[in-house]
Amino acid sequence: MAVYTDVSDEALATFLAGYAIGELVAFRGIAEGVENSNFQLRTTQGDFILTLYEKRVNVRELPWFLGLMQHVAGQGVSCPQPVADKAGVLLNTLAGRPAAITTFLPGVWPRRIRLAHCRPLGQALARLHAAGQSYAPVRPNSLGPEAWPPLFESCRAGANAVLPGLEAELDAALARIVPFWPGNGANPDLPRGQIHADLFPDNVFFLKDSVSGLIDFYFACTDMLAYDIAICLNAWCFEEDGSFNVTFARHLLQGYEDIRPLTQPERDALPVLARGAAMRFLLTRLYDWINTPADALVTPKDPLDYLKRLRFHLATETLDGYGV
Amino acid sequence: MAVYTDVSDEALATFLAGYAIGELVAFRGIAEGVENSNFQLRTTQGDFILTLYEKRVNVRELPWFLGLMQHVAGQGVSCPQPVADKAGVLLNTLAGRPAAITTFLPGVWPRRIRLAHCRPLGQALARLHAAGQSYAPVRPNSLGPEAWPPLFESCRAGANAVLPGLEAELDAALARIVPFWPGNGANPDLPRGQIHADLFPDNVFFLKDSVSGLIDFYFACTDMLAYDIAICLNAWCFEEDGSFNVTFARHLLQGYEDIRPLTQPERDALPVLARGAAMRFLLTRLYDWINTPADALVTPKDPLDYLKRLRFHLATETLDGYGV
Repeated sequence: MAVYTDVSDEALATFLAGYAIGELVAFRGIAEGVENSNFQLRTTQGDFILTLYEKRVNVRELPWFLGLMQHVAGQGVSCPQPVADKAGVLLNTLAGRPAAITTFLPGVWPRRIRLAHCRPLGQALARLHAAGQSYAPVRPNSLGPEAWPPLFESCRAGANAVLPGLEAELDAALARIVPFWPGNGANPDLPRGQIHADLFPDNVFFLKDSVSGLIDFYFACTDMLAYDIAICLNAWCFEEDGSFNVTFARHLLQGYEDIRPLTQPERDALPVLARGAAMRFLLTRLYDWINTPADALVTPKDPLDYLKRLRFHLATETLDGYGV
Repeated sequence: MAVYTDVSDEALATFLAGYAIGELVAFRGIAEGVENSNFQLRTTQGDFILTLYEKRVNVRELPWFLGLMQHVAGQGVSCPQPVADKAGVLLNTLAGRPAAITTFLPGVWPRRIRLAHCRPLGQALARLHAAGQSYAPVRPNSLGPEAWPPLFESCRAGANAVLPGLEAELDAALARIVPFWPGNGANPDLPRGQIHADLFPDNVFFLKDSVSGLIDFYFACTDMLAYDIAICLNAWCFEEDGSFNVTFARHLLQGYEDIRPLTQPERDALPVLARGAAMRFLLTRLYDWINTPADALVTPKDPLDYLKRLRFHLATETLDGYGV
């Protein structure tokens, strides 16, 4: 469900009058995405997406996100391209929310991941990284390893109610990840750039097993490129029963390296990055699980899916385990 | 929110292979409607809506609804037109649900009702009634006056918790409506035909103050035509503060009579029909209000909005009160 804010006819008409994109033809809420309100917008000039940014998005960061989308689209990455209004402005206000119009992307996100998706996904991720290299503005990753201990503290008291022993397990896991994180202390840093940081299947559109576009850049940030691969290993390479699909992982990495071969330090760091990625999603889901009111519009995702992934990564010491 | 059932890629591909509507281009859930799951479907041949019918819809009645939509569309009414598969079948199965593809309608439903909407709405309603006259199959109104007493009994025990005194007020109101219902006992019957029976603003698309289409025929039934007007008086002619907008009502009725003048018995019956329409929506909302679990996807609508309407109609004895 993703329409939190409704838009009056007059407000929409006034808003659209600021853009040179033709006359309104259709306007429907989209039942996907969980952070913002999205509407499919059709005008006499074509199809667009209208996004109202809800409270979880920091309005001061929106220019960074929209700038990144505009930049990588200009480099040939298929992603929603922000549409400027008549004054050249990408970000406006509608129904009391920051709002932007972006181009419509064809494609369907895969409800079930198949092997055929993985190599094109890896290629698309590497192309995004390459395109982002020339985007200079920096956005630190606000959900990186420094954020995990305080995030865990904020839900520590509820952890064992979710699963007995979870509190101790997460303490032990954090101690096995954070000190070993690339760039921390004496650990070598890795190649950095703009990463998507949330490239789950519902953010990747396919047409006939080719990637037709990437969407939802609102967790993107400047971080180690290989961390984005680690997120995809978590998001794309586990079966519903929690088992790791090493063939999916091999194809994903092959696809990535078709475009940008990994350095040896990146390869060596992949297990700890994968652990960290599992920790990041486990902690935010745990927080949402504990803090979402029962009558909320969005059902929180089960944090324990990511505990299974975390356990797998903690048991996987070398790249062999990832099919490389 | 209106995606209750998700659809796997393979199931969608198999389903679409049965239709001659081109190749899949895009597929997004629509966040509107409360009874069924709706998806916007784009193929190389154009735009369609895919509907999965959820449990509240009786599968045996679907051919009646789809037949009505097909029939009135053939008479020039702009409404979703069911698309037959290669075998000529309108209704198939997808993800374990009855499913149909219909044509996409341009337009936007009005978030705020303006006077300019009311006369075109009345005209569109009368045109729908005229087009339905030649559709012979009958579907009794399962939410007509015989249904109200048992519906009230099923939520009587919770009524006073919603509003102190509501139980007695509804008993008294039912006694002032049901015995006076047209066709009951010695009361004269009124012209009958196919009615929409749920023509709320979110089911009427407009483009520049012209009606571009009517949607969501899944409460349609065979009943008194003037009852459909009474439903629209309730759904379109009250301000947010609960006050009746007599100008809206006058324009709505003028629009209707532009196409089909009302008979004198219909005019005389309008107050009791308006009371009945308010009772029908009050009771179904009361039922949902009492019976919706706190964690449901759809927030139930406040039944007391309709208590205000009911009180207005009970105090309005003649057509003057409706602007006629």
